Amino acid sequence: MKPLLMTLGDVAGIGPELIAKAWEQRPPGPATVVGSAAALRRAQAQCGLQRPVAVLEAPDEVAPPGVLAVWEPPGLPDSLMRGPQGQVRADCGQAAARCIEAAVAAIQAGQGRALVTAPIHKEALHAAGVDYPGHTEMLQALAAAPAVRMMLVNEELRVVLVTVHLALREAVNQVSRAAVRSTVQMLDKALRCPFGLSAPRIAVAGLNPHAGEGGLFGDEELREIAPAVADCRAQGIEVRGPFAPDTVFMRARAGEFDAVVAMTHDQGLIPIKYLGLDEGVNLTLGLPFVRTSPDHGTAFDIAGQGRADPRSLLAAWRLAERLSA
Amino acid sequence: MKPLLMTLGDVAGIGPELIAKAWEQRPPGPATVVGSAAALRRAQAQCGLQRPVAVLEAPDEVAPPGVLAVWEPPGLPDSLMRGPQGQVRADCGQAAARCIEAAVAAIQAGQGRALVTAPIHKEALHAAGVDYPGHTEMLQALAAAPAVRMMLVNEELRVVLVTVHLALREAVNQVSRAAVRSTVQMLDKALRCPFGLSAPRIAVAGLNPHAGEGGLFGDEELREIAPAVADCRAQGIEVRGPFAPDTVFMRARAGEFDAVVAMTHDQGLIPIKYLGLDEGVNLTLGLPFVRTSPDHGTAFDIAGQGRADPRSLLAAWRLAERLSA
Repeated sequence: MKPLLMTLGDVAGIGPELIAKAWEQRPPGPATVVGSAAALRRAQAQCGLQRPVAVLEAPDEVAPPGVLAVWEPPGLPDSLMRGPQGQVRADCGQAAARCIEAAVAAIQAGQGRALVTAPIHKEALHAAGVDYPGHTEMLQALAAAPAVRMMLVNEELRVVLVTVHLALREAVNQVSRAAVRSTVQMLDKALRCPFGLSAPRIAVAGLNPHAGEGGLFGDEELREIAPAVADCRAQGIEVRGPFAPDTVFMRARAGEFDAVVAMTHDQGLIPIKYLGLDEGVNLTLGLPFVRTSPDHGTAFDIAGQGRADPRSLLAAWRLAERLSA
Repeated sequence: MKPLLMTLGDVAGIGPELIAKAWEQRPPGPATVVGSAAALRRAQAQCGLQRPVAVLEAPDEVAPPGVLAVWEPPGLPDSLMRGPQGQVRADCGQAAARCIEAAVAAIQAGQGRALVTAPIHKEALHAAGVDYPGHTEMLQALAAAPAVRMMLVNEELRVVLVTVHLALREAVNQVSRAAVRSTVQMLDKALRCPFGLSAPRIAVAGLNPHAGEGGLFGDEELREIAPAVADCRAQGIEVRGPFAPDTVFMRARAGEFDAVVAMTHDQGLIPIKYLGLDEGVNLTLGLPFVRTSPDHGTAFDIAGQGRADPRSLLAAWRLAERLSA
């Protein structure tokens, strides 16, 4: 079996520590870290860990048992270990981007079966001249994917977002029949494979209070969302809605639906984050491979202290393992 | 002590059953139901209850111990007990409105100390020619209150809404410095009295993803919300924000804040409802008296079956009792 590839993220942040810790509780399948071996060893030391690190010649080289397997892509900046952690640094941004590019290329070349990404920092990427708002957009470009969607998964809820990082005023305009329809289609496909549900039950949230109450509080439900649901039902997808946003997530949590399509970033993320669960996972739909990540950032404020909590990364790892098995 | 007044709501719905059941577990202070005694007796029968009903001459007449005390305001339609339950009926809407008017007048005349309202049905009100979207607006008009806000309270979270029943597209435009400021002021006042907190800690949610991320995803935080927070801090209110909407409710639930000011209906109601708690209470800020209600509707689908769950009404009753003691 090809290894799961795991990018180290921004080494000024907690990514290397997360991976060093998570490796000690890793799922059974093969995995290779893509990034600086020195940064990984430093993180081990910061966390009080001593597992041998094996530097592989290629991402899919079979590592000896018991080692932490790492592959260093060509082109990592020499300065990486010389500067401090906990800061925005162009060289760290450059290295983070380089690892992502190399990991995607390796998967495209058949050297890896899925991707788990440790956190990157947008400003560090920007300082390195890499102007993507985040992983999702960068991976979409690298994989030349026509459309991607952000899916959030925790122990209780699965949510996919129709709109993500834009002003609410603008998000309202982007809730179109086409965008909702393709989100439902991508979600239904993902729930069948890789999630393995034979008859996924999808709920679509409305945009407005009470899902517009028949047009009284906005017409996006009548004009865009309901037609998109009808389009998908005509294709045999078991999707219902639009439902009142204030209760649809509660209903999904209670088991009535397998996943919810949310119209905006916070509509979906408020319920995902409300319980403060430590095992939230971000999954990208629309890529030609499985990609997961923890649902938190680089945590510069605690980087290098050995305190980073690997549970979300481990959950991302386990989900990628399961979905790509 | 003056009685707490409790309107019967739309008698085609579950209101009378809620009150009949809740009476059996009522808080100790005096209370008078405002509405049809016949509808209340019918509800008792539907719920298998047999407590004697005492029809009072005035809302503040002292009732004998052990009875269910009800005062029938003048002007209830004769047809009330003749039609079916579970339907929109103009006479039920008319009776519901009459009870609310009479209860407010009684409180204004010093005959009651707080108001708990059982659910009404907007279409039934409309059929009776009473065109308010709900209790809140009707009470605002009856009490001639310059501004009111909807507050939601459950065991874990307190939320106040800046905007309520309007399209999201329009809500974005109504998130103004003045509206946020007055909401924070009303909330701070309520948390001090009647809630009794000596130093309330208030969080204000942003409107946009990541609270706008410094203007990248919308400027309402910079233009309206942050200045409103500054205005309130200058008045000595312990308020912070705007915070990222996706984590502020989690933080309040974890104990960092006593209450959250939400910009839109669903931003605030999604976390309030997510856990499916049965004891959510709706509280109106800005009225000259305490007013609470359950956070659900008339439930026409189960009216008359004795199945209605009185927990939210009981929580509303207990909160009104506590806040008006």
